[in-house]
Amino acid sequence: MSQLSPTVELAKELIQQPSITPNDANCQEIMIMRLATLGFTVERLRFEDVDNVWLRLGEKGPVLAFAGHTDVVPTGPESSWQYPPFEPTITDGILYGRGAADMKGSLAAMITACERFLAETPDLEEHGSIAFLITSDEEGPAKNGTVKVVEHLQARGEHIDWCIVGEPSSTEFVGDVIKNGRRGSLGAILTVNGVQGHVAYPHLVKNPIHLAAPALAELAAHEWDQGNEYFPPTSFQISNISAGTGATNVVPGELSVQFNFRFSTESTAESLQQRVEYIFKQHQLDFHIEWSLFGLPFLTDHGHLLPATVSAVEEVTGYKPTVSTAGGTSDGRFIAPTGTEVIELGPSNATIHKINECVKVADLDLLSAMYEKILSKLFTK
Amino acid sequence: MSQLSPTVELAKELIQQPSITPNDANCQEIMIMRLATLGFTVERLRFEDVDNVWLRLGEKGPVLAFAGHTDVVPTGPESSWQYPPFEPTITDGILYGRGAADMKGSLAAMITACERFLAETPDLEEHGSIAFLITSDEEGPAKNGTVKVVEHLQARGEHIDWCIVGEPSSTEFVGDVIKNGRRGSLGAILTVNGVQGHVAYPHLVKNPIHLAAPALAELAAHEWDQGNEYFPPTSFQISNISAGTGATNVVPGELSVQFNFRFSTESTAESLQQRVEYIFKQHQLDFHIEWSLFGLPFLTDHGHLLPATVSAVEEVTGYKPTVSTAGGTSDGRFIAPTGTEVIELGPSNATIHKINECVKVADLDLLSAMYEKILSKLFTK
Repeated sequence: MSQLSPTVELAKELIQQPSITPNDANCQEIMIMRLATLGFTVERLRFEDVDNVWLRLGEKGPVLAFAGHTDVVPTGPESSWQYPPFEPTITDGILYGRGAADMKGSLAAMITACERFLAETPDLEEHGSIAFLITSDEEGPAKNGTVKVVEHLQARGEHIDWCIVGEPSSTEFVGDVIKNGRRGSLGAILTVNGVQGHVAYPHLVKNPIHLAAPALAELAAHEWDQGNEYFPPTSFQISNISAGTGATNVVPGELSVQFNFRFSTESTAESLQQRVEYIFKQHQLDFHIEWSLFGLPFLTDHGHLLPATVSAVEEVTGYKPTVSTAGGTSDGRFIAPTGTEVIELGPSNATIHKINECVKVADLDLLSAMYEKILSKLFTK
Repeated sequence: MSQLSPTVELAKELIQQPSITPNDANCQEIMIMRLATLGFTVERLRFEDVDNVWLRLGEKGPVLAFAGHTDVVPTGPESSWQYPPFEPTITDGILYGRGAADMKGSLAAMITACERFLAETPDLEEHGSIAFLITSDEEGPAKNGTVKVVEHLQARGEHIDWCIVGEPSSTEFVGDVIKNGRRGSLGAILTVNGVQGHVAYPHLVKNPIHLAAPALAELAAHEWDQGNEYFPPTSFQISNISAGTGATNVVPGELSVQFNFRFSTESTAESLQQRVEYIFKQHQLDFHIEWSLFGLPFLTDHGHLLPATVSAVEEVTGYKPTVSTAGGTSDGRFIAPTGTEVIELGPSNATIHKINECVKVADLDLLSAMYEKILSKLFTK
């Protein structure tokens, strides 16, 4: 049996900790041990039930921060897994375990990249600083994690120039996609009021399902924008709908609908809200709506980090990566508004959040090599 | 304080029994005691968890049966009631309590009508028979109640010629509406299949809510028929709709919808099914549908019972009643197919199934007088 690389060994050690969100389960201490050895200062930042840590090596700017999370999503039924989700197992060059791709593999790759880079660059502190912003609240409500750490840093004037988020950005093979931004996310809880009654007395009821159906059909068919060079068109999806008492002979008095926009920079949260409410009013609905803005769209199309990342990936893989803003939100949305250049680079997202989450062992070593090259391009030119 | 009539006293006694469907809670024994005293033979017919009773006075035909149920719908939050739902309370000439209108008041009126009629008609058995068909499974699934009793009677060749169902047929005042039939009831459970996924990847999902919305809007707007002399137009109502995992970032893979037709004799169950499925196919839905035919439409527009009832009501109230087939289904649907003339006559349905169900005290006495006059017209001419 061939020996495992330090990256894969560290990934396995992290996967072994059952850190179901928001529980860190000792992962951050494992990372702290490795980074403190390299000379990083350690600032543990616990907010309510969430462990976070800020580690930094160097006093001066520019600051490159690796950002990531130690928490993982629940496993689902463990009996459905080919191998126990917290017993990392390698078969045919694939590492299985909850968090293998999202994102303990990336965390391991970031640390080993720093270890190799610093061994070859003893004078880093003359060129800038490297930091780690690690939370255990990315997969949960994301209220006491990255957003709080960023507020804490801002309050004392500590600025991050460049940020590499380790989210699994890739699709087919590692490095095929880099994220340089994300769409905004706008959610809503809609209540449509009607008048409850017996199905046998249709003249006495106002069926909120009947009243809302044409409006929902119109929303589903509507083109919100066409996107632009960096963003796909804004999309609208209803995630939950419910009405009814359970009884088959009662027309319900109320319909509840939850929906979500993922929006490009061609729309604003305000413009989407106005258009939705206009459609409901046109259909003369008696409705109430609660909006939640989960994140504004952000974009990194300038500066040094994106070109350094693109060429680092190209040198490691031989292919030019696609630069995209597609996909879900990430903690990048909390960091970008402070003026930080943010990119996301991690392994394939094909199995994340699923049963039998896994990552190619070789991809973790490639990812570590990419991170190392980015450090090298930014700090040693 | 004025003395209460025997009808009102008996109604109070029945309301005191908390007979939430399918529990009879001793109501039938109270009725049996009164009717056995009059000479009725008693046949208790328990099917699974449902108490039923068939009582008959007389050997020969024609047979007039009073049909009714002792079970009531649940109370809803008792704290919302002005008076406790099973503590019958009279205020300002109104009797409050669960079942006051649906239909313990009618049961009491039927019994006292028989008591007075038989006191004046000792030779009833020369003219025909009076019977009671009482169930405690009308408000529930209606599987082990009237339908089973009717099957039992049919199996031994016992026929009911006339049937008065005590359902609350009236609207403004007692006797303003007599039901001489009912619409059919056809239910369906619809499942629309889509493809589940993350809201952030709209190209990978098929949102069953989005796909179904235009089809549901079309069903809600469709005119199924225009009704006829006896029946209002067929009506369609969605009673329950649900889809969603609860998570706001997941597009569900499946939508469930329950809906119900109340249909006139201008449509058939088959024609409605065909038209619904045609609409779903036109919208290219991937769907599955389970149909349940709860009752065919029936009509009593011939024979002696209807004219006897109309003139009985007119003599008691001074007004000619409206004869209608509107409203919900009743156990009449199980009795009519055996060739029985069926009418429904009971108090106002304004508060049935609601908080603070109630009936005018005076209406119960009028109702008892109407039942007595019907007996008199049918058996003593």
